[in-house]
Amino acid sequence: MAKATSALKNSIIEKFGTPCSVIDLDIVERNIKRAQKLCDQVGVANRPHIKTHKSPILAKMQILAGAKGITCQKLGEAEVMADAGITDIIVATNLIGAARSGRLASLQRRVPLKVCSDNIVSLRTYSEAAQQANRAMDVLIECDTGQKRAGVETPSEALALAQVIKDDPMLNFAGLLFYPAIDSWRATQFFLDEITAGLASLRLKPGIVSTGGTPNFVNIGKLQGATEHRAGTCIFNDRMMIKAGFATTDECAFSVFTSVVSRGGEARGILDAGSKTLTSDMGGLDGFGLILEHPEASIHKFAEEHGFIDLSKCNKKPAVGEILQVIPNHVCVAVNMVDQLVGIRGDEICEVIPVAARGMLV
Amino acid sequence: MAKATSALKNSIIEKFGTPCSVIDLDIVERNIKRAQKLCDQVGVANRPHIKTHKSPILAKMQILAGAKGITCQKLGEAEVMADAGITDIIVATNLIGAARSGRLASLQRRVPLKVCSDNIVSLRTYSEAAQQANRAMDVLIECDTGQKRAGVETPSEALALAQVIKDDPMLNFAGLLFYPAIDSWRATQFFLDEITAGLASLRLKPGIVSTGGTPNFVNIGKLQGATEHRAGTCIFNDRMMIKAGFATTDECAFSVFTSVVSRGGEARGILDAGSKTLTSDMGGLDGFGLILEHPEASIHKFAEEHGFIDLSKCNKKPAVGEILQVIPNHVCVAVNMVDQLVGIRGDEICEVIPVAARGMLV
Repeated sequence: MAKATSALKNSIIEKFGTPCSVIDLDIVERNIKRAQKLCDQVGVANRPHIKTHKSPILAKMQILAGAKGITCQKLGEAEVMADAGITDIIVATNLIGAARSGRLASLQRRVPLKVCSDNIVSLRTYSEAAQQANRAMDVLIECDTGQKRAGVETPSEALALAQVIKDDPMLNFAGLLFYPAIDSWRATQFFLDEITAGLASLRLKPGIVSTGGTPNFVNIGKLQGATEHRAGTCIFNDRMMIKAGFATTDECAFSVFTSVVSRGGEARGILDAGSKTLTSDMGGLDGFGLILEHPEASIHKFAEEHGFIDLSKCNKKPAVGEILQVIPNHVCVAVNMVDQLVGIRGDEICEVIPVAARGMLV
Repeated sequence: MAKATSALKNSIIEKFGTPCSVIDLDIVERNIKRAQKLCDQVGVANRPHIKTHKSPILAKMQILAGAKGITCQKLGEAEVMADAGITDIIVATNLIGAARSGRLASLQRRVPLKVCSDNIVSLRTYSEAAQQANRAMDVLIECDTGQKRAGVETPSEALALAQVIKDDPMLNFAGLLFYPAIDSWRATQFFLDEITAGLASLRLKPGIVSTGGTPNFVNIGKLQGATEHRAGTCIFNDRMMIKAGFATTDECAFSVFTSVVSRGGEARGILDAGSKTLTSDMGGLDGFGLILEHPEASIHKFAEEHGFIDLSKCNKKPAVGEILQVIPNHVCVAVNMVDQLVGIRGDEICEVIPVAARGMLV
């Protein structure tokens, strides 16, 4: 994101006050096209993860640009997207708490979902929900190839679950979901090949083989057999993506406009954006965000509504009342703090976009 | 909070799904009474900080129990509280971004606010807003006695601002706001005494001398001249307050009900509550929360919607599908993630309380 002009900063503060979470829609469009092209070039379908923006408006922009469907992390997110008419949805996690509330069956009645599992309990839950909905449910098996997040850790576990799915008339085996570490593509290939062979002996084929993550775009096309990629952050990018080498500052579409509200001494400043705006997610970086106007300043600490900045390395120091733009370390959690994003193009405020699926915890 | 019965856990998950943020209203009431008593015993008025709960329903319970008024950190919070009929409000920060949006003047027209300042820019802003509202504004001067947060750092700076307030017909000098470190009461007394003497020579008196913070209840009554205390966390308490020695687990009123959704191997588990539910605020503690059923387990890492738990020290390990209760490290930011709190008493779900001022960033 380029530094905003004074005119734009004044419009933002007069219309919305600060802090204010802003997206540059020109950059958003370029980022959407870029992700689509990265997938198209290697013949892998693009299924963006909407956890980053939580907005049906932005999800539809992604679909219009060529995305096959979307990925959600929460049933509540899928509900919001389905309400907006989006029907090709993977929910990329074990849904247990959501299923037991009856909401999984309700949504399955309306939209045929693709859900994920790494254990027998969630499979059982899916079967019950599918029965209640009177519609068989597509299930992907989540596989872990070293990240130690969710996912079965061996091909044999995956095959055991595939057998359960095959034996259950209310479940359809839809494929495999991976979230490999950047350097584990060979291990992932090995895992996938072994499981594919095993599936063949069960007369099953993985219709979908999904990989994930914005940094993993560097590996796209490497995994033979992959059919889809799901990435979230790339629509906005953030300081972590700059650090990862995926994006430049100009490719970051989201920033928080924040006022300097206090200056304690020569080297200290206080912003009106703290952990309730930018979040305490450091993402392994130093400091809590990049101040566009003062990249050499550091946001070294947060209170809930204050960001404490160290200005000792700044030649020119911002005065109380100045408006600064901060690119957060981790944009997915920063977007999740607000109910709306202010959309700009160039110097103009042009749209207010609700973060419609925010707060959908289940 | 006591461990919930299976019956209650089943009611929660069937009615709301997991994760679900729950408060025990019996404990809330006891905590409200306790804070009030701590203030009453030393003749200091209680002005709870509503940033913790952001709910007019809970603010009114505090006022009914004897609180003189409330403290807000955001103008948007004050708007929500004023909408609910609460009129005695301190906004404990420099309001600059909010003022320039015109919202400060609008609220001042409806409710005579008490605002805070540590610099000439916010004073100027307040004067303009008061003029627009056609009602003079009460201003407290925020003083820093060592925390290096907001606040003037010397009595002479405070007196210079007091002079500006005195000279401005649209501003009334209302008092002083402190947030002392636990061990800086002598320094704070020295600061207050010096400033009080200086104010006398300006023929001003601090009508309000406010101290803050739940851990600072240990010092309440020590600062001669203090008239009010503002504390937020004590209505719910959290793992930080347990660590600080202010609260026991039984005095923690808030917990997140979360399902175990995956178990990877003997020592690993995954909860359906991650950084978008419990937040990455560690508050200086190890791990991201206390699991009531497995206090020896550690939540060692978060993804956005997953909590990764280390079960190596647990004799009995939770199975997939089990519901656990987590007390967060920092309750103020955890409440801020949700749009509603489910209120229980004993074994019964009795109320759903909107977190009405959530998302009021300005």
